[in-house]
Amino acid sequence: MSYDIVIHNGVVITVNSDFDIIENGMVCITQEKLERIEARADDTPLPEAEQIIDAKGGIIMPGLVNTHTHLPMTLFRGLADDLPLAVWLGEFIFPCEAKYLTPETVRLGTLLACAEMILSGTTTCCDGYFFENDVASALYISGIRGVLGQGVIDFPAPGVPDPSNNIRTAAGFVEKWQDVSPLITPSIFCHSPYTCSEETLKKAKAACDSKGLLFQIHAAETKNEVNRIQTEQHTTPIKYLDKIGMLDQNTLIVHGIWLDSDDIEIIAKRRSKVSHNPQSNMKLASGIAPVSGLLRAGVTVGLGTDGCASNNDLDLFREMDTAAKVHKVNLLDPTVMDARTVLKMATIDGAKAIGLDKDIGSLEAGKQADVIIIDTEKPHLVPMYHPVSHIVYAVQGSDVRDVIVAGRILVSDRKLLTIDLEDTLKITGAIGKNIIKRA
Amino acid sequence: MSYDIVIHNGVVITVNSDFDIIENGMVCITQEKLERIEARADDTPLPEAEQIIDAKGGIIMPGLVNTHTHLPMTLFRGLADDLPLAVWLGEFIFPCEAKYLTPETVRLGTLLACAEMILSGTTTCCDGYFFENDVASALYISGIRGVLGQGVIDFPAPGVPDPSNNIRTAAGFVEKWQDVSPLITPSIFCHSPYTCSEETLKKAKAACDSKGLLFQIHAAETKNEVNRIQTEQHTTPIKYLDKIGMLDQNTLIVHGIWLDSDDIEIIAKRRSKVSHNPQSNMKLASGIAPVSGLLRAGVTVGLGTDGCASNNDLDLFREMDTAAKVHKVNLLDPTVMDARTVLKMATIDGAKAIGLDKDIGSLEAGKQADVIIIDTEKPHLVPMYHPVSHIVYAVQGSDVRDVIVAGRILVSDRKLLTIDLEDTLKITGAIGKNIIKRA
Repeated sequence: MSYDIVIHNGVVITVNSDFDIIENGMVCITQEKLERIEARADDTPLPEAEQIIDAKGGIIMPGLVNTHTHLPMTLFRGLADDLPLAVWLGEFIFPCEAKYLTPETVRLGTLLACAEMILSGTTTCCDGYFFENDVASALYISGIRGVLGQGVIDFPAPGVPDPSNNIRTAAGFVEKWQDVSPLITPSIFCHSPYTCSEETLKKAKAACDSKGLLFQIHAAETKNEVNRIQTEQHTTPIKYLDKIGMLDQNTLIVHGIWLDSDDIEIIAKRRSKVSHNPQSNMKLASGIAPVSGLLRAGVTVGLGTDGCASNNDLDLFREMDTAAKVHKVNLLDPTVMDARTVLKMATIDGAKAIGLDKDIGSLEAGKQADVIIIDTEKPHLVPMYHPVSHIVYAVQGSDVRDVIVAGRILVSDRKLLTIDLEDTLKITGAIGKNIIKRA
Repeated sequence: MSYDIVIHNGVVITVNSDFDIIENGMVCITQEKLERIEARADDTPLPEAEQIIDAKGGIIMPGLVNTHTHLPMTLFRGLADDLPLAVWLGEFIFPCEAKYLTPETVRLGTLLACAEMILSGTTTCCDGYFFENDVASALYISGIRGVLGQGVIDFPAPGVPDPSNNIRTAAGFVEKWQDVSPLITPSIFCHSPYTCSEETLKKAKAACDSKGLLFQIHAAETKNEVNRIQTEQHTTPIKYLDKIGMLDQNTLIVHGIWLDSDDIEIIAKRRSKVSHNPQSNMKLASGIAPVSGLLRAGVTVGLGTDGCASNNDLDLFREMDTAAKVHKVNLLDPTVMDARTVLKMATIDGAKAIGLDKDIGSLEAGKQADVIIIDTEKPHLVPMYHPVSHIVYAVQGSDVRDVIVAGRILVSDRKLLTIDLEDTLKITGAIGKNIIKRA
């Protein structure tokens, strides 16, 4: 029996249901799948394999799952910070989207995002944006896995100048990408309950349901949104979405910050999922989501970075660190959001949130081989008492040494193999220079 | 005129009083000092220099100032997380300090800390711990700059088994290190107003005052502390410290979380300084310091990481990102703690907080040459609209390419030149293995 890849000499964090941690573990891969994950006695020979990867005492773990991104917004990273939300959106983000987004800039911005994500250990992302066809093309080249939602909004939008075509565009995207690649799952992303009409929401949800796909929506993100829905719909965003039939197990609620206890109960009952984006929520001063309450109610919560214009990076290691800390201080309880809970949010629970947990999110035989290796021979990672603590509180994206998605090596010893990084940095840097000149 | 070092081809963030940012800037160094900081026209030849450093379009900025650390606690990094404070301290940290701290382990843990700090762009730290003589020895080897406080507490402590010797030990440390190196400034660190008697505090402060040195103390860190001081002293920690004469411009209040408006006014009036440690305060669930209020009152606030047992790293870039974000969400105001304010906290205001602003904290002719260069040719740093935004919200410690302290190159192209990193990781890793076996 010969494997394609055998990874050895590291501590394996499986994130399986028993949360097994295997000291001196070994991971064997054939084609796109994990075949064996087990401890290796020091004196046993390694199995035969086309490629043997020595983790050199580091950490072998599932690739991270980013449950909420707007990938092409890497192009607007740091364009406008520290501003009131209305100014940020109205004077910078919306005008720049209208002016500078084309299929080509979206493709390039997404390539940049993929490079950043892969190099920092993310192997799956869940995106929502415009020109999603071009987002998908870039993902396809990069080798990362994704659930990709064509954006739907009842206003003229990049690539959809006439909003009456928004559902048709989204359905066409879904149709086109449904069977192109096992790594790409199409989806529809409705912007919010206040920017999409009831009719739009229902049509989008129906289009997803007809193919069993994920329906994504920003909801309960700001106090203003809650007040507006209260005025217009006489209820909370979550109760409104529930009333019109938007909430079931295939719905991903993004942010979910301003939730009352009834909202939480409804989300739990409908088995809808939540994407928690603490760094974006903090930077935009949106609020702190009641994640402990959601978890207590049994809701699946995944972690996300949001777009680069409101974070300003796509590094899930930083996001884990922040997620663990912000709830502790908010509740004045150092025991909430322990490292294990947070790591699950960034792996298996993220996979559940976007409907991919049968395939990814943990290292288990039969699942897809989405694996990353952390180099722990760094001053900020020594000594190592508890690898899970290190992952959440000390590891940085730049400590990720190797990245494998579906058995394909995307990063080897920090070198990205699927994207011409130098070229991508040059051209996206030039796009940025053009934007700042005219912004 | 020939310089020792000329750095060119980067954007220079001076952090001078005008906050000048120089596109295509140049920094010239002779011996330990900055001589010229200016723009360079593309067609002018570079000045002569022994060493020319090409920043390759990156960021040239002052080295960061960490205003609060317990350096040897790198040895306990991640040993115990997600626990109530009393359990964390009483069952893990205090017993481990008692069992495993020796002059030699303190020296090695500090070397590890220096490696981490220098490689992540910190050029000055302000420490407080036990066996501070051995902390100082390690700093001396590493080449980093430091204000080092021998710890004082009215209990048996590592290296000071009889607390009646605590002031004598501290005074002896100050005496010994006062003129050893221009990079090392001795200080005294009193643990807190509830673990040091009034007499101890007064003696420690007097010992500092007699030599014009910094007096450091943790204060107003937790609700429990406030309650305890209220019971014992019938006032707040700050008012108690003020009453007994502890507060003046040479006093650094560490944490300063539970402050009422009178406390803030007193700190401002006495011109005392505050060290803000948001990540530690979040992880230990201590609370969120009223930093906006302190800044409005005119108080100088520096940034600190605290020790590695409560963070779990010494990376000031992560700390800046968190500092900028946590106050925004806490006050639901995205305009507070803008990137410029936070960068100042990690540089010039940190330097002010520890009494070194005449020498460091900004790139200005005549100041010490403490300079770092950021490599911005990374996917998470492209495009670059505003370098200050990048520094706070996107740069990681691992993006620091070169580090210079007092004109001495400590890191060249990510290689640490002053510490045998392999050896340090090996031996501190082994110390950790010994601790976990017996803990």
